[in-house]
Amino acid sequence: MPFGYLATMRTKPGHRDDVVKILVSGEDGLRAAGCRLYAVGVSDDDPDLIWINEIWESEQHHAASLQLPETRAAIAQAMPMLTGDFTGQALTVVGGVL
Amino acid sequence: MPFGYLATMRTKPGHRDDVVKILVSGEDGLRAAGCRLYAVGVSDDDPDLIWINEIWESEQHHAASLQLPETRAAIAQAMPMLTGDFTGQALTVVGGVL
Repeated sequence: MPFGYLATMRTKPGHRDDVVKILVSGEDGLRAAGCRLYAVGVSDDDPDLIWINEIWESEQHHAASLQLPETRAAIAQAMPMLTGDFTGQALTVVGGVL
Repeated sequence: MPFGYLATMRTKPGHRDDVVKILVSGEDGLRAAGCRLYAVGVSDDDPDLIWINEIWESEQHHAASLQLPETRAAIAQAMPMLTGDFTGQALTVVGGVL
């Protein structure tokens, strides 16, 4: 079954959109790495928080993607604009409209 | 931009899979109503909790879907097996792999 990962990351005030730009720029590489969904979301409820909803072919695909050069580059680029507050929830995706 | 909705619902002990079955059964109707993603997820971290990650064409599509007969029937069918603990976070989906 596909592997789901629900993540949030908090940005330093005023940097949310800069980080969003980085996160949404990696589409081709993510698909090639086995990513089926990498939905970046924001809300006026919390202007410094970014939600990332991911679905991968497997947990292994997700783990391997974190070692990709482009992923490491994106993380390094975003890190100075982040507070270090991250949350993450791994899921087994059991069905629905995928 | 697409409308995202991150929801959880808590089931009474032992009923998670029964409720999952109801949630994943409505695929065709959801697509016809403008749903692009309705990913039902579970985790061993919390065996009575169901995560539902949704992406809709718009917030209006999402709201209208709650009035559909099949949605109301599914809710009525699941409700006796739920504790009433729901969470929900509305999002603007700004990009990524969708």
